[in-house]
Amino acid sequence: MAVERRPPSLHASPLLLWSLLLVGCECVPTQRDTTKEVASYTDVANQIIKLVLSGPAQKRSYQRLSNFTDTIGNRVSGSHNLELAIAYMYQAMSQDGLDVHLEPVKIPHWVRGEEGAEMTQPRPKRLAMLGLGSSVGTPPEGIEAEVVVVSSFEDLKSRAGNVTGRIVVFNQPFVSYSETVAYRAFGASEAAKLGAVAVLIRSITPFSINSPHTGWQDYQEGVRRIPAACITVEDAQLMSRMVGRGQRVVVRVTMGAKTLPDADSFNTVAEIKGWLHPEQVVLLSGHLDSWDVGQGAMDDGGGAIISWEALSIIKDLGKPAATEDHESRAVDRRGARRGRGSTVNMSNYDLVMESDLGTFAPVALQFTGSKAAQKVMQEVVKLLAPMNTTRLEPRAEGTDIGPWMQAGVPGASLHVQDSRYFWFHHSEGDTMSVQSPDDMDRCSALWAVVAYVVADLQDMLPR
Amino acid sequence: MAVERRPPSLHASPLLLWSLLLVGCECVPTQRDTTKEVASYTDVANQIIKLVLSGPAQKRSYQRLSNFTDTIGNRVSGSHNLELAIAYMYQAMSQDGLDVHLEPVKIPHWVRGEEGAEMTQPRPKRLAMLGLGSSVGTPPEGIEAEVVVVSSFEDLKSRAGNVTGRIVVFNQPFVSYSETVAYRAFGASEAAKLGAVAVLIRSITPFSINSPHTGWQDYQEGVRRIPAACITVEDAQLMSRMVGRGQRVVVRVTMGAKTLPDADSFNTVAEIKGWLHPEQVVLLSGHLDSWDVGQGAMDDGGGAIISWEALSIIKDLGKPAATEDHESRAVDRRGARRGRGSTVNMSNYDLVMESDLGTFAPVALQFTGSKAAQKVMQEVVKLLAPMNTTRLEPRAEGTDIGPWMQAGVPGASLHVQDSRYFWFHHSEGDTMSVQSPDDMDRCSALWAVVAYVVADLQDMLPR
Repeated sequence: MAVERRPPSLHASPLLLWSLLLVGCECVPTQRDTTKEVASYTDVANQIIKLVLSGPAQKRSYQRLSNFTDTIGNRVSGSHNLELAIAYMYQAMSQDGLDVHLEPVKIPHWVRGEEGAEMTQPRPKRLAMLGLGSSVGTPPEGIEAEVVVVSSFEDLKSRAGNVTGRIVVFNQPFVSYSETVAYRAFGASEAAKLGAVAVLIRSITPFSINSPHTGWQDYQEGVRRIPAACITVEDAQLMSRMVGRGQRVVVRVTMGAKTLPDADSFNTVAEIKGWLHPEQVVLLSGHLDSWDVGQGAMDDGGGAIISWEALSIIKDLGKPAATEDHESRAVDRRGARRGRGSTVNMSNYDLVMESDLGTFAPVALQFTGSKAAQKVMQEVVKLLAPMNTTRLEPRAEGTDIGPWMQAGVPGASLHVQDSRYFWFHHSEGDTMSVQSPDDMDRCSALWAVVAYVVADLQDMLPR
Repeated sequence: MAVERRPPSLHASPLLLWSLLLVGCECVPTQRDTTKEVASYTDVANQIIKLVLSGPAQKRSYQRLSNFTDTIGNRVSGSHNLELAIAYMYQAMSQDGLDVHLEPVKIPHWVRGEEGAEMTQPRPKRLAMLGLGSSVGTPPEGIEAEVVVVSSFEDLKSRAGNVTGRIVVFNQPFVSYSETVAYRAFGASEAAKLGAVAVLIRSITPFSINSPHTGWQDYQEGVRRIPAACITVEDAQLMSRMVGRGQRVVVRVTMGAKTLPDADSFNTVAEIKGWLHPEQVVLLSGHLDSWDVGQGAMDDGGGAIISWEALSIIKDLGKPAATEDHESRAVDRRGARRGRGSTVNMSNYDLVMESDLGTFAPVALQFTGSKAAQKVMQEVVKLLAPMNTTRLEPRAEGTDIGPWMQAGVPGASLHVQDSRYFWFHHSEGDTMSVQSPDDMDRCSALWAVVAYVVADLQDMLPR
């Protein structure tokens, strides 16, 4: 997920943007039979699904992702590893025969530095921790203070007289990521307003093997900036029990974190070019950067790779046997795409797609667009019947496609079986071990069918 | 689990042994109606279950376990923390009104020291690791060598010519704990026979968030002793993929581990005394020591605490209203126990019980004994009907009760819903966060009913 990965003020980030080219038709602007038109892509969709699920492209998504993340490792915004990652993808996609270019972009550059935390009272215990992105550091000797444990922002306020000079431990229960992440995002400033010297926030996860999860946090303007780190569910609960028994709990936190000036980086863009409306674009995306723990395989290596893979698949289709009218039509159109210009003109974006919630077994396509556009997409997902993923859900998710959707561009995202997504998210557990070749194939096939068909329809999706 | 926690040669360990006292009857040595006799304990069993599940003892097991493990933390064999743990339990059980004494025992004393591992080629990466109990250390500068990755002992042998001077990475799949633990136990010696300089063994777990799991390993006599550590599932798989691509993987391991002379320690014994046959004993047990990671809440704090709790519950029963013959009979007997002697005479052990597989929701009682004894126990577990845990399974498990069972003493162990037991086992994840107050209550109630009834039956269990 990108939503919490960078401060809201920073949209620019090393996205992996793929542009497929829309082939529209100027000659039939009136109401047309979309149902029939979309159904004419059944054979192409079946070809794509076969190519990926049992053909030459089988397991290729997984192989590409493991080659990439095993070679590069994690690649946090501003790091040398991210530069290596961009160079790797530039080369790999070029070798794949795609038209690749880089678009300069400024990105955040926060560095973790050396860090650690330990409980010193009532007994010594090392606390597994990870500083939060954008946090300031501590003095070199660290900050040592008694903790006050709170279970909510309300609980924090009710202890207002008891916070000054303390380290606040947020031991909020996990409700849902979108709700509970507020503690990670805003905990530091809320505690600082009451005089806290640092915050330790229970990791935003429903499950833990004493595993800390990092992520961005946001300082509020005009509020003193105090060091912020996440600790494990287990240690937050331990300190809560101790304080509940009336024990005095003291913790020392040391963080070498600092924010450097924004770094120069690139969006990495690969294209398959269209011809009739080269200015019109179907965009598939995932973000190439990751957190500085684990491999960034799930968040969001998988999303980036299936977006590449979708283009590869379409390229690999080649010319099918043209035994039927609509098949040869599809071939003609597929062979007839041209590249879009590099200038972003929102009105020319037909559909923006983002995968940033994992590439586990796909459940549905999430879609944001007009009712008329939804009607078209309902037909498109029917083409996925051989994979049993014909569900269209309202509302696409994705920080990176957000600006497009806010400007009225239809958006799509991938809903996957992500019940364990937040178990690994932003932790050392985000590795290739959570990925399945078969599930990734299914994601790639879905991604490719949707992108291909929408790009090839006569009309742009109605707004 | 104790089975893998200490070398097979060392039975002596700081067990928490509880003795309940058997009240037998010399006057009716012939065949008696056990079914009817056991059924007469229905009201007592119901009292126990009510006391624990909804009465004053509710959640007490969890509270005792969290007080204990939060206060002491982990407590590896030979450590100062184990001494603190023994002192804590001695005091807590004495305050609880039980008759407590300590029995001197020699225990293993292995110390981990400073340790770490990192991949240096093809790219630098820190490897989460834990040295294995009884392992030797490395030279201070560590051992750096190319790795050879194997998936089984057979695979290791097939690469015999390629092992000398290498670090062997065992990347065996997890089949079951009892089967797969062989790699942790014997991996070092098997690799050393072929000239390996160290071994890194994939943690014995079906699930990981990059979490290493420690445990004992066994050097084979006459084979060079090489350093042995466990690494995470993720890192073992990473190196396997890298080597599979033809990459040269180099790792540096540094371990300060060493084995010191056996330490002096104690078994901690609490008793409720019987009168008719003070020499006869029902024993409930869990082990008080743990690994030096996490809190040792699950392994085996829970087992030790429910064994204490069972005695507390029986003590707490007090005098029930004697409205029925069999109730008052039960009261008379309960009030009439005397202590056993401290000399172990196997023939006087009526039943030895061990809980060392977790204290999650109980599923069944496991039992090892003669067919006649099984028949009695089938009746005993029927008393647990109000808790829906009336299943008796063949074969008790437990390293610590093993010698008794081998000598013919009937044994019992607790089968719990342990599907996640090995996710946390011997890792930083073995904390109070995996424990549930309600599940622990159910374990304690089961433990108390079984111990009470078997101790109170007219005859010892038939051998």
